[in-house]
Amino acid sequence: MLAALKARFGERCSTALAVREQHGRDESSFEVPPPAAVVFAESTGDVADAVRLAAEHDTPVIPFGVGSSLEGHLLAVQGGISIDVSRMDKVLAINAEDLTVTVQPGVTRKRLNEEIKSTGLFFPIDPGADATLGGMAATRASGTNAVRYGTMRENVLALEVVTASGEVIRTGTRAKKSSAGYDLTRLFVGSEGTLGVITEVTVRLYPLPEAISAAICSFPSIEGAVRTTIEMMQIGVPIARVELIDRNAVRMVNKHSKLDLREQPMLLMEFHGSPAGVQEQAELVQELASGHGGEAFEWATTPEERTRLWTARHNAYFAGIQSRPGCRAISTDTCVPISRLADCLLDSVREADESGLPYFLVGHVGDGNFHFGYLLDPNDPQERETAERLNHALVSRALSLGGTCTGEHGVGLHKMDFLVTEAGAGAVEMMRTIKRALDPRNIMNPGKIFSI
Amino acid sequence: MLAALKARFGERCSTALAVREQHGRDESSFEVPPPAAVVFAESTGDVADAVRLAAEHDTPVIPFGVGSSLEGHLLAVQGGISIDVSRMDKVLAINAEDLTVTVQPGVTRKRLNEEIKSTGLFFPIDPGADATLGGMAATRASGTNAVRYGTMRENVLALEVVTASGEVIRTGTRAKKSSAGYDLTRLFVGSEGTLGVITEVTVRLYPLPEAISAAICSFPSIEGAVRTTIEMMQIGVPIARVELIDRNAVRMVNKHSKLDLREQPMLLMEFHGSPAGVQEQAELVQELASGHGGEAFEWATTPEERTRLWTARHNAYFAGIQSRPGCRAISTDTCVPISRLADCLLDSVREADESGLPYFLVGHVGDGNFHFGYLLDPNDPQERETAERLNHALVSRALSLGGTCTGEHGVGLHKMDFLVTEAGAGAVEMMRTIKRALDPRNIMNPGKIFSI
Repeated sequence: MLAALKARFGERCSTALAVREQHGRDESSFEVPPPAAVVFAESTGDVADAVRLAAEHDTPVIPFGVGSSLEGHLLAVQGGISIDVSRMDKVLAINAEDLTVTVQPGVTRKRLNEEIKSTGLFFPIDPGADATLGGMAATRASGTNAVRYGTMRENVLALEVVTASGEVIRTGTRAKKSSAGYDLTRLFVGSEGTLGVITEVTVRLYPLPEAISAAICSFPSIEGAVRTTIEMMQIGVPIARVELIDRNAVRMVNKHSKLDLREQPMLLMEFHGSPAGVQEQAELVQELASGHGGEAFEWATTPEERTRLWTARHNAYFAGIQSRPGCRAISTDTCVPISRLADCLLDSVREADESGLPYFLVGHVGDGNFHFGYLLDPNDPQERETAERLNHALVSRALSLGGTCTGEHGVGLHKMDFLVTEAGAGAVEMMRTIKRALDPRNIMNPGKIFSI
Repeated sequence: MLAALKARFGERCSTALAVREQHGRDESSFEVPPPAAVVFAESTGDVADAVRLAAEHDTPVIPFGVGSSLEGHLLAVQGGISIDVSRMDKVLAINAEDLTVTVQPGVTRKRLNEEIKSTGLFFPIDPGADATLGGMAATRASGTNAVRYGTMRENVLALEVVTASGEVIRTGTRAKKSSAGYDLTRLFVGSEGTLGVITEVTVRLYPLPEAISAAICSFPSIEGAVRTTIEMMQIGVPIARVELIDRNAVRMVNKHSKLDLREQPMLLMEFHGSPAGVQEQAELVQELASGHGGEAFEWATTPEERTRLWTARHNAYFAGIQSRPGCRAISTDTCVPISRLADCLLDSVREADESGLPYFLVGHVGDGNFHFGYLLDPNDPQERETAERLNHALVSRALSLGGTCTGEHGVGLHKMDFLVTEAGAGAVEMMRTIKRALDPRNIMNPGKIFSI
């Protein structure tokens, strides 16, 4: 197998330990031996050839973008090779007049927005990391703008995919809607590399809003912030972003970035629209917020001021990690129907506080999605146990409230049991049946989502 | 088989010819023998039992709502039984505070909106017919509001489904987003009854807009109307509805409904938002329209006035049929990227005019989707041939422009060849592989979407 790969790819097939190790980990906290080799693909043909060789040798294939998965998607749990698509980074077609763009899978979201800057359009989906479009499609990613613009589920129009047999197929078209057969596009979006390798992605773009206004608002309690959010969603305010940061996160960010933000729970918001529309939304939200103790509204309309306000949100994860030297973060990812957000969140905050484990809390609360970052000492098994117990209680609570164990990170290695509880054995068995049918040799990122 | 069904369902299993014939046709123009029996299901358990009995006898199963399919989805092309779910018409849970509702599959869209009236919410998806939610999910339906609110693809959150083996599974949750495994919900949405029977549907609802304003605007040519539409989409006007009606349709509606609308192509529009927002959108659109010869803007803000303005659109199909007594309509359903709408539409209008076949044209043009209704004499094979030739030319054109053969009606019996051209043999083979895996006996609405 390795000889065949070397013969086909030459220096673009690496077995160097450093390269393999870099491709054998991601942002999760699992320890697994690295893949046997890394192939640097530069074209769809490269990917197809690598998959065909892997199929001939029953060797697992793991697609790799920039390695920003939080759930162990990239780990070689059953050995095999990593196919690195980061060199497939061409923007293939900007169809500004149709509000679509087609890219290779290695293009990152920031690069994409740079490339289309002159068109007056933007691509809104922004997971924290500067992830690749291929990886974002594979994990059904979302982020802060999803409350207004949707997730990868709503924004991927079409894909090119290398199947488990090395065949190249296309799914979807550039038309905005279609009823033409099974929705293969959405089957691949969120399939976490287990059904094929995504080699092209066509996504929707949006006109840059005429006006953008950002605001932060402090609340005496998380509850006030959450109830404000619930109300704005229920009356249909078309807010573009509404993020919660808890007191812990504000404290950590103040220390890390030398800021002096009021150490209280806060909402960070952004409004997109016409100048008058933005003004109208802002007034409405301010009124809702003051009904729940919201105060110290601070507004920003220039890009520089907005960036300053959003610093707290952008730095939260990193500031969290830095707040406890040597710690490791375990991130939760539950998402619940909006009316249950307060119930789900407040009980979990209480449990986390009682546990004594350091943590921070940030959330895309407009979607009912939030992340606890438990900061644990990796050398203290007790702390890991505590974090897992808190996470279990949180997921059970979210599921009992009609929610999901993962709003945007994916199942990967860590949430397989949660998936069975959430979806039921019958639905997971249906996923397995599809997997077996489309990947009979079980070579596409095996051991992720479900055991098979 | 029939004995077993009779034993289980008694009078709720009918073999009366009139009942079978009613269930053996839809709004398409195919002639096929009716199903052998009709089971009137009243619960998920009924559906599961009927499917299990059918599986034991390798008998095809065809789910039936109100029979409003345009593509032959309900025809018993391989024999079998019809499962009528129209008695499964309960609204199971209105979660107004989460903007979701869960219904049985036999609830129609108008019934649903009646039931939730008092909540201040509405369900926007409106194919012309008063279709059932089950049927709308199965065909990935949309309609006039899709330009703002999306299609069934974006608005179905969760399903309960009876699989081909008679097992009951649930897909999705009420959370707004999720990355929990394969997107089974969207695999079933648009599967046209070929993978299972939908027995529960959870959809998103929206707050009724504070202000609604409707308008019609006449144009000297279709081109002016289309170019106005393209521009409003490109700059991102959040218009709720923008429908094109051609001169033929206006003429037919005038005659049918005794109206005196200006016999020119027109756009019918609706704006949703705050009073100021609606005003702003309307002014912007009026400016764009006058740049393309748009004139005779007529506005309506009360429900009664709006209904009057929209009469032309609502009656277009029926007025078309009535304009040629004894005729049959063949409806096209192409959808193209917005910038290609003028190219696709204008050439096809020219071809239709040259053919001499009577026709009308209506379109959800904001989505790039439109329908020619060719009005042919069913006893004249030459006319059917002409209609098929026009349709083929239109679909080929739409596909070459990056579009789809069906924006919202589904593939059914009529568009199988088009699907292969559009999606490619590899993608259709992947659909077949999924079908074989989930329905190994091929009993779920066999012979639709693709031959197997």
